[in-house]
Amino acid sequence: MYTLNFADLTPARFLAEFWQKKPLLLKQGFKNFTDPLSPDELAGLALEEEIESRVVLCTNGDWQMETGPIEDFSRFGERDWTILVQAVDHWHADAALLLQPFRFIPNWRIDDLMVSFSTPGGGVGPHLDQYDVFIIQGLGKRHWRVGMPDSSLQQFCPHPRLLQVSPFTACIDVIMEPGDILYIPPGCPHEGISEENSLNYSVGFRAPAQKDLLTGLADYLIDNDISGKRFTDPERPVCQNIGELGAADLTQVKQLLQQLVSDETSLPLWFGQYISRAKHELDLQEPDPQYQADEIAEYLEEGSVLTITGGLRCCYHQADATADIALFINGEQYLLPGNELITARLLTEQRQLDEQQCRYFLALPERLGLLVHFINLGYWHFTG
Amino acid sequence: MYTLNFADLTPARFLAEFWQKKPLLLKQGFKNFTDPLSPDELAGLALEEEIESRVVLCTNGDWQMETGPIEDFSRFGERDWTILVQAVDHWHADAALLLQPFRFIPNWRIDDLMVSFSTPGGGVGPHLDQYDVFIIQGLGKRHWRVGMPDSSLQQFCPHPRLLQVSPFTACIDVIMEPGDILYIPPGCPHEGISEENSLNYSVGFRAPAQKDLLTGLADYLIDNDISGKRFTDPERPVCQNIGELGAADLTQVKQLLQQLVSDETSLPLWFGQYISRAKHELDLQEPDPQYQADEIAEYLEEGSVLTITGGLRCCYHQADATADIALFINGEQYLLPGNELITARLLTEQRQLDEQQCRYFLALPERLGLLVHFINLGYWHFTG
Ligand SMILES: O=C(O)CCC(=O)C(=O)O
Ligand SMILES: O=C(O)CCC(=O)C(=O)O
Ligand SMILES: [Co+2]
Ligand SMILES: [Co+2]
Repeated sequence: MYTLNFADLTPARFLAEFWQKKPLLLKQGFKNFTDPLSPDELAGLALEEEIESRVVLCTNGDWQMETGPIEDFSRFGERDWTILVQAVDHWHADAALLLQPFRFIPNWRIDDLMVSFSTPGGGVGPHLDQYDVFIIQGLGKRHWRVGMPDSSLQQFCPHPRLLQVSPFTACIDVIMEPGDILYIPPGCPHEGISEENSLNYSVGFRAPAQKDLLTGLADYLIDNDISGKRFTDPERPVCQNIGELGAADLTQVKQLLQQLVSDETSLPLWFGQYISRAKHELDLQEPDPQYQADEIAEYLEEGSVLTITGGLRCCYHQADATADIALFINGEQYLLPGNELITARLLTEQRQLDEQQCRYFLALPERLGLLVHFINLGYWHFTG
Repeated sequence: MYTLNFADLTPARFLAEFWQKKPLLLKQGFKNFTDPLSPDELAGLALEEEIESRVVLCTNGDWQMETGPIEDFSRFGERDWTILVQAVDHWHADAALLLQPFRFIPNWRIDDLMVSFSTPGGGVGPHLDQYDVFIIQGLGKRHWRVGMPDSSLQQFCPHPRLLQVSPFTACIDVIMEPGDILYIPPGCPHEGISEENSLNYSVGFRAPAQKDLLTGLADYLIDNDISGKRFTDPERPVCQNIGELGAADLTQVKQLLQQLVSDETSLPLWFGQYISRAKHELDLQEPDPQYQADEIAEYLEEGSVLTITGGLRCCYHQADATADIALFINGEQYLLPGNELITARLLTEQRQLDEQQCRYFLALPERLGLLVHFINLGYWHFTG
């Protein structure tokens, strides 16, 4: 496990002073850092069809970009390129451990782990992101510069699929070494240029935009065949200007929309499903044949340990202490009785369930049934 | 032109007492009614690929339904079937005139004109609709029964694509004769069974449901690449239960959605575009070659008359007397200066522009340019 070394900060002070406000360099945020994967392993992931990857290279000021799968790296030469692989936590259990130290921020806000390997001179160029990120330096050294948000910066595309930003003034300018961590809030320009072959791990966050929320809610209504109320106008006066779209009609349209997005019951249920959906494919291995409850019970009694699939998105919502608990896993919703909070927490806050935690699921048939269901979906698997 | 004979009612009293409240029979609502089309013309429309039509037949209690285009009617026999053709106002100029008398309700609320031809015994069976409708009896006689909304009624499908309702108590039970008009609010069960070969004209209304509104707004944001604000949490406290989707986060999600649907500027612009989109294909004939402004000016000076294409949906919105006018035609938005209200009204409230009204467009180059644009799109065409 990786332990975050906040130096003279605490998570609380970090959140109050830096989170979403200004960039921070945590020198040796991970002490004695050891890479969870090697450049070769990363290249292996980039070979896979279902794993999103891209190579960015810059030769004599000419930016190029190629999307994976990528077979042959020799043609990119020895310098000035970077390979970036998305959602490595979905495919590499040890790499997924890098997300754990950042879980003083809730699950739903955390997105995925991107890993990049860069040759000397390699980088994606100066750019802005819309999300917070922690960039961890692994192997090698890389020169990182970070600036504050600046509305005078111009964004441009040196290549149709690369968005970069004009030169910026750095407030952090550092040669990162293994175990150093950079926190970058949304909108802060940043640029990393490798000094030598180097690995970077980006812990990315999720912050839906208004459009995403509205689109997600619309999809939910469609999927669940919820039409809601129709426009009604039993009070309509005789119309003077038949072409006019009048203020009273528009007010009702607005109210219908407002009512829909203000529903205290359905909003959390929708959002939980929406935000627990993975953006990248998961490496789900459904057991074949499926387990029976009594088999699972036997394993748990014998003292088995369960591990969650990397990247599985889990959270829960409970409106108040007596309300039912809505458990959201991988875009699905499960309603649990209000007194099943420990169950919800075990399933959403643990990367592994130890022997004792596993046995907790034996006490109630419904609780065991839920776990069996998740094991049969490949969400949890026995690792001891 | 058809003139509505409200008997002892006025449009105002109709709206106050019946609209969206209870059904009404207007005996001889159109005096000396003459059908705008013949059964043969309707059969001709049902031949067309781009015109939505369906035949419903019931033989010995067995309901059948077939969608158009329909070539051969002889195989349905002499009785117990109905052919229904949607959006006839888009294809038949005289039939489109039947919508005009109902324009004491604004344009945007009016949907289309459906026309049915029924043989003796023919009908779609007892059913509920979600929209208001005026059913006009043309040729022949038909037995119509209408009831009040009743939550104890059961809906069922005697055929996968036919939704009917269990037997209901009628508050209107009448043999309709040519020129009789029935008004039916949403949710009132109704059934028409033909006594003889008969034509019915249904003036349908549009009343978007909450889901339609939200989906429409989401599409608008996507089409216009409007992302809006992102979720932000600079005040986030240290998280106790990382699995929890907390109340403060959900409140912000709700606020982001509420803000989006409450924007007084963009909401009317979106809704106008949304509601002015036709649901069925239009018979737009773009002039080829396109007209030049000076050609059009010449025709208008000479005293030409313009007619709008049937089914073209037009409306406008002006927030206050000095604000710009947003003109919506066929799902597109055009911004006019606030003093162009007459232009907006001419373009949205007239089926025809007479010589004098046409000349009004000559006074300003922008006004003429707009009209030329619409003529070149086939929205308006010269008819004299
Ligand atoms: O690793 C890289 O080259 C890019 C990292 C980055 O810019 C980010 O994670 O936001
Ligand atoms: O004309 C018909 O047979 C059906 C008419 C009808 O039910 C309607 O317009 O709502
Ligand atoms: Co970045
Ligand atoms: Co009906």
